[in-house]
Amino acid sequence: MPEFDLIRRLQEMVCSEQSPHRSQCVLGIGDDAAVLELPVDRQLVVCTDSLVEGVHFPATTPAAAVGHKALAVNLSDLAAMGAEPAWFFLSMTLPGADREWLDAFANGMARLAAESGSFLSGGDVATGPLNICITALGLVEKGEALTRSGARPGDLVVVSGRPGAAAHALALLQSGQTPDDGDLAALEYPVPRLRLGRALRGLATSCIDISDGLLADLGHVLQASATGAELELQSLPCPHSMSSMPARERWPLQLSGGDDYELCFTLPAVLRDRLPELSRIGQIELTVIGAVTGQAGLVVREPGGGLYQAAHAGYEHFRDPGQHES
Amino acid sequence: MPEFDLIRRLQEMVCSEQSPHRSQCVLGIGDDAAVLELPVDRQLVVCTDSLVEGVHFPATTPAAAVGHKALAVNLSDLAAMGAEPAWFFLSMTLPGADREWLDAFANGMARLAAESGSFLSGGDVATGPLNICITALGLVEKGEALTRSGARPGDLVVVSGRPGAAAHALALLQSGQTPDDGDLAALEYPVPRLRLGRALRGLATSCIDISDGLLADLGHVLQASATGAELELQSLPCPHSMSSMPARERWPLQLSGGDDYELCFTLPAVLRDRLPELSRIGQIELTVIGAVTGQAGLVVREPGGGLYQAAHAGYEHFRDPGQHES
Repeated sequence: MPEFDLIRRLQEMVCSEQSPHRSQCVLGIGDDAAVLELPVDRQLVVCTDSLVEGVHFPATTPAAAVGHKALAVNLSDLAAMGAEPAWFFLSMTLPGADREWLDAFANGMARLAAESGSFLSGGDVATGPLNICITALGLVEKGEALTRSGARPGDLVVVSGRPGAAAHALALLQSGQTPDDGDLAALEYPVPRLRLGRALRGLATSCIDISDGLLADLGHVLQASATGAELELQSLPCPHSMSSMPARERWPLQLSGGDDYELCFTLPAVLRDRLPELSRIGQIELTVIGAVTGQAGLVVREPGGGLYQAAHAGYEHFRDPGQHES
Repeated sequence: MPEFDLIRRLQEMVCSEQSPHRSQCVLGIGDDAAVLELPVDRQLVVCTDSLVEGVHFPATTPAAAVGHKALAVNLSDLAAMGAEPAWFFLSMTLPGADREWLDAFANGMARLAAESGSFLSGGDVATGPLNICITALGLVEKGEALTRSGARPGDLVVVSGRPGAAAHALALLQSGQTPDDGDLAALEYPVPRLRLGRALRGLATSCIDISDGLLADLGHVLQASATGAELELQSLPCPHSMSSMPARERWPLQLSGGDDYELCFTLPAVLRDRLPELSRIGQIELTVIGAVTGQAGLVVREPGGGLYQAAHAGYEHFRDPGQHES
């Protein structure tokens, strides 16, 4: 199947005809590049992320989950910026043209594209080890993008959902066990928190998705904001499947496991009573897990009040041999 | 080296500080996504293309050439649309963090980014087989993008440069021989024809880059334009290194070899006398190699007037076993 047909087939399947952004795609797949008409009162928000078989997902992952997740991890970055998804571009390499695999992959991607109103506007397919690179373009009202740099001492640290389920599922799969359905769904079909991200505009002082692990990503916020934070582990909401796990086995998965596509954001304490409304709009539970402090560094307290020492903060590519977390 | 440092290091090296589009990048590397301020009187032109080691370039390719070419193939697509490059996004996987390789790679990319005024605005780096995915964003005046679909019977078919040098260099490398410097440069450091593309706005009726091979890519133009064309092989300009090759060895490389980043465009015959000026602005020779016809299909004439039969039109990923060119 020639490349041209393959990408057309993907387009036909990922046929987000309903997307409000379709008409702004003046020229889509089938030319050297796409041409997009942009609304005048918006800024463009752009992110790019690749999924590689054997690195970001096990080779046994269902094709539909690969298609879903490749788009979801990018939409999650748009969510963390408070942006509305508009268009996306797909550049993938795959070892061969397995129509059955490709149809399932495209179906998984198409469902999420339709749900999110995101329009596939261009792409490129070539032979190579399975690698799916997506670049997502979103729109945000001028000056309203959420960033990592606005956290202020006294702000609440809030997390959506219950971090740890994806890492738990992966750990079980890797040891030959069967995760429960909820955890497996968190790993394979993560839900980008787009409604929540949009609702946080003008309220949250900073926001990030915790795909690299809660501690590592909150660390990025604190560094960008030149602040510190104190977290209370007794407040950290626990996935149902992990409620009977010893805390010392559970915490590393919840704090450093990564692959959670929940949002962690900071909110002025005076806005605490807005949380139920934000949770309703975002369709996800929200939990205050700590507070921003004026002193640099992240202090994590165990239920007894003692300090929790993380073995490592989160997933890192390219760790130098023998390197310790600084 | 953590991912975060790696992408920062790339940014520092690919430090296109001079880019006029830097100030429009309100938020760059270091957040979940970039935020871009867009000029109101432009359309956005977007393309994405991946280079995979062993598929798009031999493993022996110098790192600087890989960095250059990964960006060049995308800028070439913007050139074919008549767009001005503005920002680009890099998502790459590489097996390890080899600083020497990475520095050379970044240097190669940085030179071209600076020359083209293109600003690296975001990225993502992970472990995996060497794969460089770039998404390039360009700007074009409203309604002025060059497309594949406007060729009309009677138009001249024009090609820039001398197609075939890259394929010639690759063939020599693959048989253990040493290509000459010009051919090797065409393969490893292709020049995106950005000035030419910009100059063709309002003049050319269609345009494409011939990265998949002249016949295959011209075929895309003819299909999109619902026209045909006749090419004269005696007019096809020949790279100096290939001037003593028998025509029957040379033509397949020139017509179907691919990896040429020249432009093929159609121009109303009444504009023929504009070609010297376009060549001067584009800083590349331009040659009329045929004409658009009203009858579907691409007719290629040998110097004696006989019909040339191409073994295959161009490079295709995912050719079905036993499939013949249709």
